[in-house]
Amino acid sequence: MKRVKLTVAYDGTNYCGWQVQPNGITVQEVLNRHLSELTGETIETIGASRTDAGVHALGNVAVFDTRVRMPGEKFSFALNQRLPEDIRIQESREVPETFHPRYVESEKTYEYQILNRRFPIPTERFYSHFTYVPLDIEKMQEAGGYLLGEHDFKSFCGAGAQVKTTVRCIHALDITKEADKITIRIRGNGFLYNMVRIIAGTLMEIGGGAYPPAHMRAILEAKDRKAAGPTAPARGLTLVQIKYPDSAFNAP
Amino acid sequence: MKRVKLTVAYDGTNYCGWQVQPNGITVQEVLNRHLSELTGETIETIGASRTDAGVHALGNVAVFDTRVRMPGEKFSFALNQRLPEDIRIQESREVPETFHPRYVESEKTYEYQILNRRFPIPTERFYSHFTYVPLDIEKMQEAGGYLLGEHDFKSFCGAGAQVKTTVRCIHALDITKEADKITIRIRGNGFLYNMVRIIAGTLMEIGGGAYPPAHMRAILEAKDRKAAGPTAPARGLTLVQIKYPDSAFNAP
Repeated sequence: MKRVKLTVAYDGTNYCGWQVQPNGITVQEVLNRHLSELTGETIETIGASRTDAGVHALGNVAVFDTRVRMPGEKFSFALNQRLPEDIRIQESREVPETFHPRYVESEKTYEYQILNRRFPIPTERFYSHFTYVPLDIEKMQEAGGYLLGEHDFKSFCGAGAQVKTTVRCIHALDITKEADKITIRIRGNGFLYNMVRIIAGTLMEIGGGAYPPAHMRAILEAKDRKAAGPTAPARGLTLVQIKYPDSAFNAP
Repeated sequence: MKRVKLTVAYDGTNYCGWQVQPNGITVQEVLNRHLSELTGETIETIGASRTDAGVHALGNVAVFDTRVRMPGEKFSFALNQRLPEDIRIQESREVPETFHPRYVESEKTYEYQILNRRFPIPTERFYSHFTYVPLDIEKMQEAGGYLLGEHDFKSFCGAGAQVKTTVRCIHALDITKEADKITIRIRGNGFLYNMVRIIAGTLMEIGGGAYPPAHMRAILEAKDRKAAGPTAPARGLTLVQIKYPDSAFNAP
């Protein structure tokens, strides 16, 4: 028996998110089916991040256990032959059986893309959130600064989340603009349900002048979802990378 | 009666190209229908560039004549309310009735995007051509240099084209690479049928080492389609801009 780790990229547009659920097709379900067909076993992957419907990934992580003799690094090629065009394995490798993509500490990087111009661009419509309201990225950058470090992010936690603690640590939050596209890149040790989309929605309100950047501190301190801005649409969000410490891959 | 010029952006993925044709839905057809509904007239637009199936546009140009009293610049807003999400008018304005988007001389800019890495990225699949063959962009840049200026581009003209002359002038050809994405940006006074895609296909062969950059000169001199490389897939191509001289908009 061996455990194989997959780095999974997908276009979330046509999926009801990552996790298997009864209401529609999910990325995990498609992955499980093709892995089961490939191996002849009943494979159920364990995913690192349960991305929502419409959210994209460049580097979500999943693991599965198999008795098949194929070397770990060959699964990427074999799976990509079978998977639909909107899911592509970026890397596969064998890892210790003790490696669990959610229980091992990691650093996640997300990007939220905003198209800020007069009219939408059709080719960008599934991969960015469009707004014609001019956004002041300097104000957004200033507001983003208040979120750096360890805080209770309860104000940025979507309803229905079941977590022991809403304290998280944001390691970096960069806001850049290239032509008409604003990118919020955020890196941290973990994110609450909808946290990145609520941060993006709040930063957009500040960029549009709804309230001053320093108000971000009051939003944090309120520890109340109603204090923050709206949840920005899923289409703008991409899970870029999940980074594990090298020690996570040492045999026990 | 007035003539209105539209700058049209579209995602070409789901269209059989620009021009009205019996075999499938086209961008022009959708535009004509919505313009006719909006004006209550029978509108037939005249397009500048008849892009192929799957080719995208940020700035194709079309004109139409109408007796409707709406100011030219308002058509963009009114049309975007009606059009499907994969077509968006970027600008509308009144122009002299003598302005014809194909008969007035113009400069066109195209971009061809190549994703050059080990595995495809799902979110890029409709907007770039993927190849895992490592491409040497310095070789591509050197080869591209031979195409600058006025030449007979018969070797780069797709079958079925009916043109008086295959002489065209390329004003600029820039090849840049950012992360895994190579962009061929090409600007000229006009392009033959499939010319940009055949140039892209030939540059890719040179970048992959099939023949040396200097062979581009021999391909040009052959004046034979068979001398050049394959026609690169439509999905990588975007018509970025069509620029007319200011004088084209002077009343006669």
